[in-house]
This record gives sequence, structure tokens and C-alpha cells, in this order.
Amino acid sequence: MKKSVERFNEIIREKKLIDVAISALHWDLETQAPKKGLELLSDVVGYLSSKSYGVVTSDEMILLVEELKKKREELTEIEDKTLEEVGKEIEKLTKIPVVEYREYNELTAKAQGIWAEAREKNDFDLFSESLEKIVEFQRRFIKYRGYDGHPYNTILDDYEPGMTVEKLDEFFGYLRKELVPFIKKIKEEGKEVDGTFLKKDYPEDKQMEFSRFIAEYIGFDFERGIISESAHPFTLNYNKNDVRITTRYIRNMLSSSVFGTIHEGGHGIYEQGIGDDIAGGVLGEGTSMGIHESQSRFYENVLGRSRAFWVPIYGELQGKFEALKDVNIDDFYRGINKSEASLIRVEADELTYSLHIMVRYEIEKALIEGQVEVRDLPKVWNEKIKEYLGIEPANDKEGVLQDVHWSAGLMGYFPSYALGNVYASQIHAAMKKDIDVDAALENSDLNKIKEWLNQKIHRFGKLRKPEELIKEITGEDLNAQYFVDYLKEKYGKIYQV
Amino acid sequence: MKKSVERFNEIIREKKLIDVAISALHWDLETQAPKKGLELLSDVVGYLSSKSYGVVTSDEMILLVEELKKKREELTEIEDKTLEEVGKEIEKLTKIPVVEYREYNELTAKAQGIWAEAREKNDFDLFSESLEKIVEFQRRFIKYRGYDGHPYNTILDDYEPGMTVEKLDEFFGYLRKELVPFIKKIKEEGKEVDGTFLKKDYPEDKQMEFSRFIAEYIGFDFERGIISESAHPFTLNYNKNDVRITTRYIRNMLSSSVFGTIHEGGHGIYEQGIGDDIAGGVLGEGTSMGIHESQSRFYENVLGRSRAFWVPIYGELQGKFEALKDVNIDDFYRGINKSEASLIRVEADELTYSLHIMVRYEIEKALIEGQVEVRDLPKVWNEKIKEYLGIEPANDKEGVLQDVHWSAGLMGYFPSYALGNVYASQIHAAMKKDIDVDAALENSDLNKIKEWLNQKIHRFGKLRKPEELIKEITGEDLNAQYFVDYLKEKYGKIYQV
Repeated sequence: MKKSVERFNEIIREKKLIDVAISALHWDLETQAPKKGLELLSDVVGYLSSKSYGVVTSDEMILLVEELKKKREELTEIEDKTLEEVGKEIEKLTKIPVVEYREYNELTAKAQGIWAEAREKNDFDLFSESLEKIVEFQRRFIKYRGYDGHPYNTILDDYEPGMTVEKLDEFFGYLRKELVPFIKKIKEEGKEVDGTFLKKDYPEDKQMEFSRFIAEYIGFDFERGIISESAHPFTLNYNKNDVRITTRYIRNMLSSSVFGTIHEGGHGIYEQGIGDDIAGGVLGEGTSMGIHESQSRFYENVLGRSRAFWVPIYGELQGKFEALKDVNIDDFYRGINKSEASLIRVEADELTYSLHIMVRYEIEKALIEGQVEVRDLPKVWNEKIKEYLGIEPANDKEGVLQDVHWSAGLMGYFPSYALGNVYASQIHAAMKKDIDVDAALENSDLNKIKEWLNQKIHRFGKLRKPEELIKEITGEDLNAQYFVDYLKEKYGKIYQV
Repeated sequence: MKKSVERFNEIIREKKLIDVAISALHWDLETQAPKKGLELLSDVVGYLSSKSYGVVTSDEMILLVEELKKKREELTEIEDKTLEEVGKEIEKLTKIPVVEYREYNELTAKAQGIWAEAREKNDFDLFSESLEKIVEFQRRFIKYRGYDGHPYNTILDDYEPGMTVEKLDEFFGYLRKELVPFIKKIKEEGKEVDGTFLKKDYPEDKQMEFSRFIAEYIGFDFERGIISESAHPFTLNYNKNDVRITTRYIRNMLSSSVFGTIHEGGHGIYEQGIGDDIAGGVLGEGTSMGIHESQSRFYENVLGRSRAFWVPIYGELQGKFEALKDVNIDDFYRGINKSEASLIRVEADELTYSLHIMVRYEIEKALIEGQVEVRDLPKVWNEKIKEYLGIEPANDKEGVLQDVHWSAGLMGYFPSYALGNVYASQIHAAMKKDIDVDAALENSDLNKIKEWLNQKIHRFGKLRKPEELIKEITGEDLNAQYFVDYLKEKYGKIYQV
């Protein structure tokens, strides 16, 4: 028995080492690899993916898992939950033929570079062939894996265990019902908010300096992480001692780097806060993408777009940029919270953000159902944006090509952002019972907030499932009302409605 | 038979994919990984090294190689030479136990970060334990592998096939005999040369811009390569489509980034110039480190420190830096060729450079022989520098800690630099028979020079052994006289002796 556990752990460790290599190659591909290097590096990703697959689905491992499952009462909690996770992964992987798994991983590694080029050149056709293949793989994999209820449920569960189309339809229905009229009211009755100063001249090198400053300020540890640049900001964790975040610098768009950095910094802080008892193991990472997004969007919005956050550091920012010389903190606060129908999800304000997610959710469902094909995406996209936001993209760069996710095979992921917003509001409400959050922000005591999140969320990694975690912290299940209340209060004040 | 060759190539390909992953991790470790990420990434390197070892030394591969060796006449030239290289590697690797091989690779991956910290903190003790282990491994590996004549020959042959201590002793003896009195003469009778302007204020961001410019100018292809920063400049090639170079930016030392970039650019151009017929395979890289250094030092010195090189682009450089405002091209030319006893090898002028290599060569020989131990290195280093150059390091940072090589396990490598200088002069003499090199430089026609090198050297990769290559190009064997003549003519003019 002891020997079986040891061997089980050895195999897990081997898989971890391969997976870190894969992550390092992805990091390289996204942040720096030369254009023509794509081919070889993608082949390496494909090869290593098949090795990772092979290690965890080996006959030896399958037997070990079966053996250990029979003796669960002899396992520690960590061993038992690790076994559960691994069992789940084996079940998923063994249904997919290894050749297709490798092909798929090669494809998505390559597709990200192709997407970046297509986006830069504003040329959907350049990307559509890759995306078609990815969608085909997704449909086929779901067929292999099977599903309960709706086929989309299978991939939804990969990012948010337990989530279903049924629950999401209700969730988004509630948000739509509450938010759409409120947005309309603001548009019609709200006081004007000026955000034009955010589009002035912000030299990239100064943005870069400030990004590093702000990441450190909120608590991202640079001894255990780095920040770099990429076409689409993301976070990658090897283990808690090596967490990488990216941002992007756009000369006439200050918010992009500032809030991109705070957002990814929130993801990074989550991963850096994993408990030592589970670090490096299967449980040693964020429990779901919804909870992950709750952390990033908590930092980005609940903290980063609050007035209190900027009280101690607005001078630092203002001193860097000529464009802010005559903008006082109140104008700045209102400017960074200006709500308007916009085209780019990652730049959207908190109020309209969920509408962007609904568009993607509906498109993904339709793609998986086979109701929509890739060639129709630009059209479908633009129609849905029109329907939800009342505006239309002038081109695919600000339309269907804006997000990296599909090129990386991340389908079923987008709802996590909306869930993240809601979790963040619930967590915020719970935090305020223990801490005076605004006072902590005004005193630059970001550590107090981080500590709370470390204690309540981060350290557990995958030891707690998302629903358990939220229940433990808030005493409730997922409850979108907190988010709606938070938005109405905040934006009601800003727009005086 | 055909099936055996196919299988042989498949295994080679598998090894290549693993080795690229290892390179990518090294690249990451040297250029960006956070301090505390060292541990995990080094473990990954160790793990993948053992897999690479396993692939090439598998029973199947050993049998395949034996089988194919019996049918060499049926193989193409490329297959035959690939077989020879692989056979050599198998012979080397199978003598080293895989556990030790993995340990060694983990160790050297870790040691480079430790060295970088030790160098930064000027603390040899921080690094000495790692270095002791590395030296022990080196000694032990040589014992496993066996040697002819001198134990140092075994590792010398890794970087310069066919090279021996006997040949090197003679080679360095000749250089010493010719150069030491000439250096003395210049010191006593030469006209003063001013290089102080090179130590003025050169903002790093401007150096960065110029580095990119100059790398592109000499012919480094950024569609197939990138430039980054590291504590010690180096070049890494995945294949000809992905070649990475680094440099370093020191605010009061312009030469460091400029000539570091040109040097690594020369390495990079070599790798980017590999023939398509051998690209990606075992033969698809530089044939030896001596020939590699001939390319880097040809670009750095023969071209980069010539007056003609700067004629079309000195204005570009001068325009970037206030410190060069009143320095004309002739003063600049003399300044970048100022010869003086100095402490840092990579910053040394061409004339005294070989003395730096002699110091390292003698120390390495003594380490391998067991005549010197790691704990004595700072003392031994300083004594030898005193002996050869007449000056003494004030600390280990400018002494024994200056080079990355030993931390990476690169022992037996340093002589390549001296050989590279000599090869470069021989190649230069041959090139001048076909091309008016100075005219090409003055006309910014760097492509003509690159084309010549591509044709005569780069495209062959490991298809030609270093001695074959030099013989083919120059009609002669290694001949240090060209280098001595070149130096005496160039420095004789500069110093008017």
C-alpha cells in the first residue's frame, strides 16, 4: 500500500515535470518565439503532450488508481483528493485516442501564433481553417467523452466543475433581466462621464514601469514570478514559486496595461498563495476558472476600480504621465468606470462586461451543437454584438478575432468570467464583515486583503471544489444578486441615477 | 534496410524534440526565470535530459546503429555522417550511468543561476560548492569515458574534434612567443590611444535599440530569431528557423552591448545559414565550437572592429548618444581597438584576448589533472592573470567569477575562442581572394560577406569536420601565423610601431 502510494506520487511527479516543460513552451510561443520558430516548438508541444498523456494513462497508473480507490479510507485527505482528480483525468483522456490528442495539442500550439497574426492583419480567413479544425476536435472529443443533458456541459465542467447549461441559462437570464434596463437607464438619465483623457498619449516605457510597480503593489511576488508582454494578457503557473503574468502596452490606452496587469496579477497572487502542503502536486493550483476569475476580477474591479485603491498611489501614476496632469482623482475614478457599449471585452466596463460574455456563451453553445459553422462566425458575432450592445464592429479585429481563447482550444471557458464577477461580489461582501476594505486600500495595506484571500481561498487550491469554497466563505451558493446590487450601487452613484 | 533507416530517423527526431524542450528551458532559466523558479525548472531539465539519454541509448537504437554501420555503402552521405555522429554520442553516453547524467544536468541547470547570483554579489563561496560538484563530475566522466594521452583531451574533443593538449600547448606557445613581446613593444613605444569616451553615459534603452539595429544590419534574421538579455551573452539554436541570441546592457560601457551583439549575431548567422538538407537533424548545427567562435569573432573583430565597417553606420550610432557627439570615426575606430591589459575577457581587445584564454586553459587542465582544487581557484586565477597581464583583479567578480562557462559544465570549451580567432584570420585571408571585404563593408553590403560564409561554411553544418572545412577553404591546416600577422599589421598601424 505504502509502495503503491509512493509509485503513484512518482508518476504524478513525472507528469508534472513534463507539463511544466509544455507550459514553458507555451510561454515562449506566446511571449517571444520568432515567427518561423512556431512550427518546431508546436511539434515539441504535441510530442510532450502525448508523453504526458502516456504517463497518466499507462496501464500501471490505471491499475494503481484502481487499487488505491479501494483503500480510500487509508489515504490522507490530500492523497484521496489527488486520486479523485487523477481518476477524473484518466477517465477523460482514455476516451480520446492519443494520436488525436497529440494532433490537437500541436494544432492549438500553432493556432495561437496564427490567431495573433490574423488579429494583427485583421484577416479572419487566415485563422478560420485552424479554428474549424479546433471546433471539429471539440465536437469529436465531446462525443468520445459523452455528456449529460447538453453536449456543452462536458467542456463547461472542465473549467467549472458542476456547472451546466441549465444553470447558466438561468444565471445569464437573471443578469440580463436586471442589467439591461439598468444600462438603458444610465444611458438615458445618467450624468455624463468623461474618459477621453485615458486615450491620450501614454508612452509605453512608462506604462511598463507602472505595470511592474502596480503588480508589486498589489502583492505579486517578483521573486516567484515575472511579467512580460503578449498579444493577449494571460497567466501561467509552473508552481507557486514560478508564476508568470503578461500584459500589453497600447500607447493611447492606459487602461489596457494598468487593469490588464492588475487582473493578471490577481490570477498570479492566487497561484502564489497555494498552500505548501499541496504545492507542486495535482491539487496545487486554482480550483476552477470561475474562482480564478473571481480573484483576477476582484483585484481588477472591486479593488482596482475603486476610489480608495487610488488614494495612496494616484500621485505615482499622475507623476508618470503628462496626460494626467490636470486630471484629479475623482475625475480619474469616474473615467476608469465610464460605462458605455464597447467592442472589446477586456476593455469593457464592469456593467456591460457580462453582455460580452453572453455573446460568447451563446456562440460557443451553437458551435458545439453544430447550429453555427466557423465560416459564419464574423457575421454571427456582429449580429449578436448588435443585439446585446447596440453597436457593430467595423472589422474582425475588434470583433470575432479579439480573444485568444478559441485558438488555444479554450471553449467552455468564457462563462468563467461572468461567474468570476459574481463570486467576486459574494467574496467582497464576506470580506467586508472581517476587514474594512476601503480603509486597508487607503492605507496601502494590500497585504491585509491578500492574507484574507490566502487564508480563505488560495491556500486550498483544488482541495475545495468551487461550490464548497463559496459556501464555506459566504454561507451561500452562487448568488448573482450580490453582483447586481454592487453594480447598481456603484454605478448609481457614479451616474447619479 | 529502408525501414531501419526510417526508424533510426524517427528516434533521432524524438531526441531532437526533447532536446529543443531542454534548450527552451535553458533559455528561460538564463534570460527570465524568477529566482525561486530555478529549482523546478532545473528538475525539468534533469528529467528531460534523462529522457533524451534514454531515447538515444535505447537497446533498439544501439541495435539499429550496429545494423546500419554494416551497410554504410547503402547510405546517403547525410545518413552516413548522421550515423557516425550518433554512434559517437552513444559511445559517450553509454559509458556514463543515466542517474549521474541526470544529476549532472540538474546540477548545471541550477548552477547557472547560482553563479549569476554569486557574480552579482561578488561571493565565490556561494558558487564554490556547485563548482566542486561539477568538477568532480567532469573528472569522473572522463574516467568513465577514457582518454588518449591527457585526460583533458576527452573534453577538448567534445568542442573541437581532433584537438589535443599536445597541439594546443604548441599553439599557445607560438602565440605567446609572438604576442607577448609585441604587446610589450606597444606598451613602451606605442602612441597613446583614447578609449575613455566609451565609458561615458550610454542609456540602456538606446543601447537596446542599437543592438537590434546592428544585429539586423549584419544579417541576423529576426523572422527566425530573437534577441534578449542575460548576465553573460550567449547563443542558442533550436533549429535554423529559431535562433536566439542575448547581449547585456551596461550603462557606462557601450562596447559591451555593441560587440556582444555582433559576436552573438555571428554565432546566430552561422546557425541560420545551415543548409536545408541537414536542417533540424543531427548534422544541422555548427561543426565545432572553434569554427563557431571563428564566425562570431570574425563578425565581432575582423568586421566589427574595422574602420570600413563603421563608415556607413557610425552616424547612426553617433546620433543615438550624446557621449559620441565630438568623437569622429577615426577616434572611434582607435578607441574600440585600444589595447591594454584588462581583467574581463569578453571586453578584452583582440591583442590581449588570447592571454585570457591561456589562463583559463591552464587552470582547466590543472583542475582536471587534480593539481588544483576549486577552493584555490580565486588565488590561482589572480596569480595567473598577474603573470600574463601584469594586473590583478580587485575582486572575484572581475576575476574567477566573470565567465558563465564552468557553471554550465562547459570545461574544455575556452580554447575554442583562441582557435576561433585563428580560424577567423585564415578565413579572412581566403575571403579577400574572392571579395573586396572593405569595399563591401563601406557599401553596407554585408550580405555579400554572409553569402560567402553561407556557401563556404554555414550550409555544411557538421557535414564537414573543422579540419576538413579549413583545409577546403584555405588549402591549409590550422595556422596561427595569419592571426599573428593580422594583429601585427592592424595594431602596428593603430599604435604606430
